[in-house]
Amino acid sequence: MQAQLIALDWGTSSLRAYKLGPAGVVLEQRSLALGIMHLPSEPRNIAGVDCTDGFELAFDTACGDWLDAQPSLPVIACGMVGSAQGWSEAAYRSTPVDVASLGQALHCVRSLRAVDVHIVPGVIEQVGLPNVMRGEETQVLGVLQGLGAQVLIGLPGSHSKWVEVVEGRITHFDTFMTGELFAILSKHSILGRTQQPCEQFQAEAFDRGVHVALSKDGQRGVLSTLFSARTLGLTTELAPKQQPDYLSGLLIGHELAGLPDNAKHKPIILVGAAPLCARYQRALALCGFAHVSLAQEATERGLWQLAVAAGLIQPVTEA
Amino acid sequence: MQAQLIALDWGTSSLRAYKLGPAGVVLEQRSLALGIMHLPSEPRNIAGVDCTDGFELAFDTACGDWLDAQPSLPVIACGMVGSAQGWSEAAYRSTPVDVASLGQALHCVRSLRAVDVHIVPGVIEQVGLPNVMRGEETQVLGVLQGLGAQVLIGLPGSHSKWVEVVEGRITHFDTFMTGELFAILSKHSILGRTQQPCEQFQAEAFDRGVHVALSKDGQRGVLSTLFSARTLGLTTELAPKQQPDYLSGLLIGHELAGLPDNAKHKPIILVGAAPLCARYQRALALCGFAHVSLAQEATERGLWQLAVAAGLIQPVTEA
Repeated sequence: MQAQLIALDWGTSSLRAYKLGPAGVVLEQRSLALGIMHLPSEPRNIAGVDCTDGFELAFDTACGDWLDAQPSLPVIACGMVGSAQGWSEAAYRSTPVDVASLGQALHCVRSLRAVDVHIVPGVIEQVGLPNVMRGEETQVLGVLQGLGAQVLIGLPGSHSKWVEVVEGRITHFDTFMTGELFAILSKHSILGRTQQPCEQFQAEAFDRGVHVALSKDGQRGVLSTLFSARTLGLTTELAPKQQPDYLSGLLIGHELAGLPDNAKHKPIILVGAAPLCARYQRALALCGFAHVSLAQEATERGLWQLAVAAGLIQPVTEA
Repeated sequence: MQAQLIALDWGTSSLRAYKLGPAGVVLEQRSLALGIMHLPSEPRNIAGVDCTDGFELAFDTACGDWLDAQPSLPVIACGMVGSAQGWSEAAYRSTPVDVASLGQALHCVRSLRAVDVHIVPGVIEQVGLPNVMRGEETQVLGVLQGLGAQVLIGLPGSHSKWVEVVEGRITHFDTFMTGELFAILSKHSILGRTQQPCEQFQAEAFDRGVHVALSKDGQRGVLSTLFSARTLGLTTELAPKQQPDYLSGLLIGHELAGLPDNAKHKPIILVGAAPLCARYQRALALCGFAHVSLAQEATERGLWQLAVAAGLIQPVTEA
């Protein structure tokens, strides 16, 4: 099947490349550890030029052979590649923003191969504390089809986003540093010292963490409840193998307790890695959120739709 | 002046040794980086024995010469030295606990020099989430003299404690991992990447952090507001040099927002390093806490009083 589009999900630590066929079907995909903070540095010849630019090198590694085979394939990219530290800065669009309209705001950078890379701009909210996203706006678009007028989209990760969408427009979003905090607490804090990794999910410990976050103790905030991951170990109420999942539940519980009050009545869509979404789905149920579903392939779909909106490709008309 | 007591404040990362004279006056003091997680390992001869035990080695380094000069000096110690990872475990006493009575519960370990080291037990609270302290109970005793019946004692640090004392008894306490979180966020998280250290205290940025913690945005919790230390940098509202003190104010603000509702009406005493206490005093004022004062020499005084209560020394009677 002939490819129609190269779609790149290019974040801080990883670069995912998709070769998409008619109607956006995924023909091939690659996952590379070539995020914008982990670019290659070994010089290489690209299109007859001795190249030392990390972005060019990573781009060539990700999809050079696809472009060799079909040099006129259009390329679209989302994520931190469009940040100030990225390949070329794609200025933020302010909320409220119609996500489909981002297709008219793609930012172009021309690669050494003379191929234009179309970068999706991120979104900024400047009401109250500023908040930013890059990449998530594309995932939001990718899951919107077929949903109701009002929806809350959760994108768990290092920096979890919760995005309120009203009739296709991002009206508000929040960021929680839950995933990064879990990682650095486990690796660098006193809590990590008594933790023992465990392959099997410790459901009881996870649920306990969520419940503590929701409890009266939890109202003192996460700075206070965190210490219980240590003290429950000291009192032998939590085995070392249970401590990581207790901490995970505790942090996710605090994140969910921080969602807006009206969130419980909205349909919620979760987008992200399946094991992490499963944790959030479990915690959401414990917190009394009723309407939760999971989305698949949000990034590929979003990039495809933006490429169509930008006129980079023609949507397939059925024969 | 003849020494009366050797008092050790022996924590996780440091060991402070005090030689105390009549009425507890400090004759000499030493600060060593020989906390229980940083013990010496080089073997040495102590009292005719080739010694490899880290606790013995650290003890000898801290006050071996004092004991050489006065072999019968009594020794008292508080802090993590009495934990399960310490020299010898001094079992916790449960709240509510009369802090002066801890003098009757000292735990003894005999050193190679045949000197008894009297270790102050820590305190555990087992109502709701368990909470523990080791060392702070001694500081609490050290500041109680002359205070009213009800007081709230704040001990800022890696793991800040807030201790409610009613008529000399610790009735309740909370722990906040504020200091450790500040350290690991600055060193290991994305927030550290845009921070620039600054010798001068950035008062405006600190105050802003406190205010954000107290604001409507702050109600979503620290997992959410943390990200503003980055986004306010992106929007150039916070210079790189302001970001560390903004983060400090933000975390301290969240800690204070987690104190019990009735805390505002109690006299508050702060115990700890002067620069850190100054930050807390400033933040407390911004949060509307009216009666705040600072205590000095809490540990030395507490250890002295416990040694007197234990009969290790005789309180001086005026001639």
